[in-house]
Amino acid sequence: MSTGRGEAMKVRFSASPAAWGEWAPALRAALPEMRLEQEGPPDSFDAIIYAPGGDIDDFAPYAKARLVQSLWAGVERIVTNRTLTQPLARMVDPGLRQGMAEYCTGWALRAHLAMDRHAQDGVWRNDQVPPLASDRPVAVLGMGELGRAAAGMLGGIGFPVTGVSASGRAVPGVDVRPIDQLDQVLGRAQILICLLPDTPQTGNLLDARRLALLPQGTWIINPGRGTLIDDQALLQALDRGRPAHAVLDVFRTEPLPAEHAFWHHPAVTVTPHIAAATRPATAAPVVAENLRRAMAGRPLLHLVDRAKGY
Amino acid sequence: MSTGRGEAMKVRFSASPAAWGEWAPALRAALPEMRLEQEGPPDSFDAIIYAPGGDIDDFAPYAKARLVQSLWAGVERIVTNRTLTQPLARMVDPGLRQGMAEYCTGWALRAHLAMDRHAQDGVWRNDQVPPLASDRPVAVLGMGELGRAAAGMLGGIGFPVTGVSASGRAVPGVDVRPIDQLDQVLGRAQILICLLPDTPQTGNLLDARRLALLPQGTWIINPGRGTLIDDQALLQALDRGRPAHAVLDVFRTEPLPAEHAFWHHPAVTVTPHIAAATRPATAAPVVAENLRRAMAGRPLLHLVDRAKGY
Repeated sequence: MSTGRGEAMKVRFSASPAAWGEWAPALRAALPEMRLEQEGPPDSFDAIIYAPGGDIDDFAPYAKARLVQSLWAGVERIVTNRTLTQPLARMVDPGLRQGMAEYCTGWALRAHLAMDRHAQDGVWRNDQVPPLASDRPVAVLGMGELGRAAAGMLGGIGFPVTGVSASGRAVPGVDVRPIDQLDQVLGRAQILICLLPDTPQTGNLLDARRLALLPQGTWIINPGRGTLIDDQALLQALDRGRPAHAVLDVFRTEPLPAEHAFWHHPAVTVTPHIAAATRPATAAPVVAENLRRAMAGRPLLHLVDRAKGY
Repeated sequence: MSTGRGEAMKVRFSASPAAWGEWAPALRAALPEMRLEQEGPPDSFDAIIYAPGGDIDDFAPYAKARLVQSLWAGVERIVTNRTLTQPLARMVDPGLRQGMAEYCTGWALRAHLAMDRHAQDGVWRNDQVPPLASDRPVAVLGMGELGRAAAGMLGGIGFPVTGVSASGRAVPGVDVRPIDQLDQVLGRAQILICLLPDTPQTGNLLDARRLALLPQGTWIINPGRGTLIDDQALLQALDRGRPAHAVLDVFRTEPLPAEHAFWHHPAVTVTPHIAAATRPATAAPVVAENLRRAMAGRPLLHLVDRAKGY
């Protein structure tokens, strides 16, 4: 099959219906040489674009599909589906690093500038001025791709950034410490950003003992993994005012149940797992390239190894 | 009089008493060779450090003072005091640019990330993801020292920044437009930062007609001058939802009266003239140098020209 201009390709979009409105124009712009068609019997589709929340549970009828393209980087919710025998590709979105860095920087500045001190109650509180960023130590736990991106943006603004990594490998512009110096780093961090992966070593890494090491006034920002922090220990520490505030984007159960204490604690801000969002503008070109490759029978990008699960 | 180590200098601190706690250690660190003494009759003081809110109205008794050092860059509230005949120096704080850039960037990211969408009400709103900064046009009105600093930091994060200046003079990394293209710039700005000076040309520059040019969803951030925006026009525009929000740090009357509509409008955030704060950490070395010069009889820095008023 050729990939000539105007060729039709049947693509089943199985994600939240609202998302299609965003994806459709981005995909069409990224794949101008193909007409994307979305109607037909299951065995007529060339490819499936999938995200949790999509309406397909049984992939078997989509016998002709040459590609199941996940819109999520994490495929743990789909890789165990035994009906899915088609090639499965995970999302690698070049905008993800930038988006994560923006999230971390935005919340770090909200903490740094003490924005929440200015209640809209008619009281002119001009007696305290925040220090400059250069006097506000920031720690970033995790020096992977996302941790380095966040550290780079925060350092660019002027914050002195200390990174903690398992390897201790050097990162330009960041004072990187090996994980065995974590206690020391926590003792100085006024803003603590958690971007470690979820491994047996990182589960409940921030427990009651380590949370107690943080100085007065520290904000914790966790857009990494819900498992990094001991939830109960965090709530008790927040009750005592140290740390001062926690901004949490990831949770052990998502969506975070409406009755969860995190929603109701005055020193917690919950954001709904949006820090590492896939954005059609940057991700559509990657999806388009994989659709192109699927139609041409060329090797697919970012294929999932079913044995490893990622 | 020599400036040998351990020499005593009598300095009267006339600002809000709370400020002395911050200034004292910074000044002592910046002026280690001198002992600062604060007690004695008015005619015994070598210098006065002054800010509005200080307790001196009549400067005549301080006949020996060789310097009145303002802690504020703006001296309009003291320069007209006829009892003040001593040399008056205004504050030039090298930290001011950085602090202003941090304020503008922090509030721009709060707008950009739609932080206020995440009410802590148990509702998991993950259906909308903000675009990347590169897709969020920012306009900075005013390309003076502060406007350039803000534009530089915002551009460094990834925002496309358009600057508007009276001169239209080029600024690296910023798409600078002359003031006669203001309407076009407003029509595209999703975040609008006002850092123009207060001149006859800029008074009520953002009036009803120009506010109506802003696209849906724009945030206005005004840490510049309270006179730039027509207050009533802004309130009416906010009532119609365009602009979406205004963050105001400067006002025609300060402190902003508790009954002012800005305090009570849900689409307004009032901050108490803190964006351009003087910080002892960066300003104390400047004050220290002027105290040193005053004692040594050398030319003072940043002297105010009484005729011009600044």
